[in-house]
Amino acid sequence: MKGIWLEEGQLGYRDDLAVPVCAPGEVLVKVKYSGICGTDMELQKGYYQFKGVPGHEFVGRIVTGPRQGQRVVADINLGCGQCQQCQQGLHRHCPDRTVIGIKNRPGAFAEYLAIPESNLLTVPDELPDALAVLVEPTAAAFEILEQLENKPPDRVLVVGSGRLGLLVAHVLSSAGTEVSLLVRNPVRAQHIQDRRIQVIKDPVNMLFPMAVECSASRAGFATALKSLQPRGTLILKSTFPDSSEFDLSAVMVNEINVLGSRCGPMQRAIDWLADGHFKEPIIQALEYEACDKAFQSAKDPAIYKVLLHP
Amino acid sequence: MKGIWLEEGQLGYRDDLAVPVCAPGEVLVKVKYSGICGTDMELQKGYYQFKGVPGHEFVGRIVTGPRQGQRVVADINLGCGQCQQCQQGLHRHCPDRTVIGIKNRPGAFAEYLAIPESNLLTVPDELPDALAVLVEPTAAAFEILEQLENKPPDRVLVVGSGRLGLLVAHVLSSAGTEVSLLVRNPVRAQHIQDRRIQVIKDPVNMLFPMAVECSASRAGFATALKSLQPRGTLILKSTFPDSSEFDLSAVMVNEINVLGSRCGPMQRAIDWLADGHFKEPIIQALEYEACDKAFQSAKDPAIYKVLLHP
Repeated sequence: MKGIWLEEGQLGYRDDLAVPVCAPGEVLVKVKYSGICGTDMELQKGYYQFKGVPGHEFVGRIVTGPRQGQRVVADINLGCGQCQQCQQGLHRHCPDRTVIGIKNRPGAFAEYLAIPESNLLTVPDELPDALAVLVEPTAAAFEILEQLENKPPDRVLVVGSGRLGLLVAHVLSSAGTEVSLLVRNPVRAQHIQDRRIQVIKDPVNMLFPMAVECSASRAGFATALKSLQPRGTLILKSTFPDSSEFDLSAVMVNEINVLGSRCGPMQRAIDWLADGHFKEPIIQALEYEACDKAFQSAKDPAIYKVLLHP
Repeated sequence: MKGIWLEEGQLGYRDDLAVPVCAPGEVLVKVKYSGICGTDMELQKGYYQFKGVPGHEFVGRIVTGPRQGQRVVADINLGCGQCQQCQQGLHRHCPDRTVIGIKNRPGAFAEYLAIPESNLLTVPDELPDALAVLVEPTAAAFEILEQLENKPPDRVLVVGSGRLGLLVAHVLSSAGTEVSLLVRNPVRAQHIQDRRIQVIKDPVNMLFPMAVECSASRAGFATALKSLQPRGTLILKSTFPDSSEFDLSAVMVNEINVLGSRCGPMQRAIDWLADGHFKEPIIQALEYEACDKAFQSAKDPAIYKVLLHP
């Protein structure tokens, strides 16, 4: 089958990949679209020492088993089912978990992938493919609300207006929070759909009870930290490269709460997108053969999301 | 008057310091003992660009005003009284605060200091001087319990068995938490008074719901981080030098809660010490003239606390 292969930092198109064989409990999914995410770019740099087919944001159709024909997205974390975390429903934190396209499991930049049927969520017909591929990052944005027990503060600063930052801003705004979005590159502002989101260029002299770091940069972390009221909360949302380094002295002095936040509730994300809170963004869809161009376009601020397809 | 002066990283004895003049609301305190703390060592390295008389852990007697003769300790944070933080009772987080011996205010490594009378807490007779100087760091240890709304988890790892780490271990243990204390230097174990505190040399294969970082080292932070269960809490208790750098990727992946923690409730610390939860530790008391020796001794693990006196 066709797909994209990552090995030793090199991404490339291949047409000789073996169609995955399903293990017990797994079904085969034919991928329709998969999205490129910041984490995929970190994988290229060595994150998780990943080797194989990357890609974890996707929509596809089940082609084997009783749910054959269903259009689905996937919870990307696969727990062992036996450990303390899994028993408590925290399979996303299972120490032996595999993660689709990120950790010890092939991903969705290929025609087919095999996934435990229990990890697949059916997508309603009214949700177009271009939004269905956003379910996984939207769920990650909702994880913030889950961690805050659905009580976000009145005002939040979102640092970073890339794909994830924009989704976080929209999810928090729809939950009733007054969102200020730090937009360094004005081109990105065109992706904002919710007019309640306030675009700011520099948070100088503004202090917030909460900031969400979505820029995956040390500078973004520093900006978030200095924009917080004492005892404020800094949500760490982005995938930082291992080598990033931070100055934490202000965390102690101002008694800041830095809260790491990763994957979130998939069904909630499906429902929110199906309810029309986020319309189809500006996308670019490219075939696997155009792998190099696709990863280049993923850095273009004028495009919200680059999708790959067979 | 006699005292110790810090300027451009150089600490030295001086006998020509001016006795402070009290501003309105302030009283003069004659210092009996003051303790050397890790923060004093950081000040030497440039923390807060402090210039003047350092020292913030002390016991003394009021020598002016209606409370003359009272033996006292001080809440070291002095807020402006006007800002939002001060109005909410968070004077410790006032952006314009001064901090005794740390930030824009002379400290207690001198015969006298002038302090707003409202910042002074009377010490009961049963509390010896060697414990009264520990009220400030004990309050800092209690700040953890305050932030946790007095509901610490069942088990806690304390990383760092220096002065603050030992106090944190004792305070948490007395609150009913099972404390494991990471002791790298076995000499420090002699300072442990509470037999319920479990000494460990290496937390390999142990996972805790909470860890308290008291080592002020990057290695200690990394150890605390990797000893946490997913969604665990890392309390950041020590004064890190500005140049410390940390790898935060595990914070995001494991959804760790890093909580900065600074100064705490003074009266609660006085009551706890007066109740005999911590006996007089191994101290070394030296005159200001022996400044160099005192700061050298402060690094000696066999001595719990080095006190300075006129």
